[in-house]
Amino acid sequence: MGKLLIVGSVAFDDIETPFGKSDRILGGAGTFIGLAASQFNVKSAVVSVVGGDFPQKYLDIFSDRNIDISGIEIVKDGKTFYWKGKYHNDLNSRDTLITELNTMADFNPVVPKNFKDADVVMLGNLHPDIQLGVIDQMEERPKLIIADTMNFWMDNTWDELMKVIARIDVITINDEEARQLTSEYSLVKAAAKIQEMGPKYVVIKKGEHGALLFHEDHIFFAPALPLEEVFDPTGAGDTFAGGFAGFLAESKNISFESLKNAIIHGSNLASFCVERFGTQRMETLQKAEVDKRLIQFKELTQFNIELT
Amino acid sequence: MGKLLIVGSVAFDDIETPFGKSDRILGGAGTFIGLAASQFNVKSAVVSVVGGDFPQKYLDIFSDRNIDISGIEIVKDGKTFYWKGKYHNDLNSRDTLITELNTMADFNPVVPKNFKDADVVMLGNLHPDIQLGVIDQMEERPKLIIADTMNFWMDNTWDELMKVIARIDVITINDEEARQLTSEYSLVKAAAKIQEMGPKYVVIKKGEHGALLFHEDHIFFAPALPLEEVFDPTGAGDTFAGGFAGFLAESKNISFESLKNAIIHGSNLASFCVERFGTQRMETLQKAEVDKRLIQFKELTQFNIELT
Repeated sequence: MGKLLIVGSVAFDDIETPFGKSDRILGGAGTFIGLAASQFNVKSAVVSVVGGDFPQKYLDIFSDRNIDISGIEIVKDGKTFYWKGKYHNDLNSRDTLITELNTMADFNPVVPKNFKDADVVMLGNLHPDIQLGVIDQMEERPKLIIADTMNFWMDNTWDELMKVIARIDVITINDEEARQLTSEYSLVKAAAKIQEMGPKYVVIKKGEHGALLFHEDHIFFAPALPLEEVFDPTGAGDTFAGGFAGFLAESKNISFESLKNAIIHGSNLASFCVERFGTQRMETLQKAEVDKRLIQFKELTQFNIELT
Repeated sequence: MGKLLIVGSVAFDDIETPFGKSDRILGGAGTFIGLAASQFNVKSAVVSVVGGDFPQKYLDIFSDRNIDISGIEIVKDGKTFYWKGKYHNDLNSRDTLITELNTMADFNPVVPKNFKDADVVMLGNLHPDIQLGVIDQMEERPKLIIADTMNFWMDNTWDELMKVIARIDVITINDEEARQLTSEYSLVKAAAKIQEMGPKYVVIKKGEHGALLFHEDHIFFAPALPLEEVFDPTGAGDTFAGGFAGFLAESKNISFESLKNAIIHGSNLASFCVERFGTQRMETLQKAEVDKRLIQFKELTQFNIELT
């Protein structure tokens, strides 16, 4: 069974959408990545930090899914990372109302001994120094290192971010971030420049407009499944990354064909994530539902044109 | 051989993009639709109107591609429809600087006798009364009537537009127009409402984000091909529609599977259109280039996940 190491925030989210308010619920990139990856046949661990206010029932959500939590440090007298945000009416943009880093401010990730030989490492969106620190703890070079990042680190920690980018195999960023990272408007040109910086594979997330995978001269595209209603987009990108990483850790096949399938699995899982507040939908998700929607993805995208 | 009747503007365009200025060149929805459809094995005719200032060499562009121009009225003492526009830096939006309707203001389309039994009718974006007038001239119900429209007609000629929509099989509109037409933000819900208004098939164009085909419970999606550079988006939507209609007129197969392929062919041709100013790229386009890019479309979208 493949081993997947996940590093990312485990947090409290407080979300307001046009459809309602969540109050304080389970959130964080590490959480969404872990839940998505747990849909695959992998041994996974989440490395993170929480405060003494983090309820046991939330930790149980990980354990119940065989996600190793020995790498989630609990700072008894600290408080858990808290984010409060409000989505605009079209759900495509949001305002951050409150960010309290709390224990995340001093996050010093310790990779569990048992995961220092993980096949796949998924570095959630964090300070590049933290991401580097995790790579340095690996006993052997993982088959695949995937890192997510965002514009904040480009603005504030450019040099550190460049060090991360030089050492990873796959970067996942959104379209605006790819443009910012390269000063190229064309995503084709941006992806080519990013590959020169290090990662052999570039995944550009376009939210409701799907995701692109670039590798050398190859491009693959997965749409987002058109949904009757999007309830809460929080965590969709991390769920996508978790599905992507989980599939690759299960298959241990690192080829362009395999990464294509990983993109589809990631998009498929993300389509569930947005149907309820926070992690609610991912907590109840069953394999039969996942498979059924994969068939929808096939119907959505597969065609048969014979060239004469 | 299938017969395709095209109704749409034949015009002068004057385009400015971040890459340069076109000066006065051949344009118009009927032109782009006709050029795209000429890539297929069809008998097609364009119905339109131009002024005495319209050069013979432009008419020859149609004739050279076996497009019947007996339905293009030439008003000797009139001037040809003229549009001048300037694109913003991201090419996703543009300002109209000048619109001179000229002879288009009194356009009274006359369907050539030989095309009153066309298999497929493609109604370009025009006043709904003109679109209705063409439908009324058909001697028998075409196998397929496709109509393009835009927000302007929703704002100004709602009742007439509803009459058109009730009588067509396929509507092609963009995402914002679909929302305006139905007051639904979700494109899935919007497409369902539009199907209740008449058309069995709804094609929603999302520009660089691809196109969706809706029919009953089925959804199909074709991405736009990611390009290194988009030079001039003018006519991309009409080229898409021309490829869509041309393929269906050639195949005479009106099924969801066939419409899926039509969407891909339309997207494929549109990817060429944007590579040069106006019609330039479409005028030189060869079948071998088209086929080669169809293979790229397959690589871009086709995957192989076996469900267990």
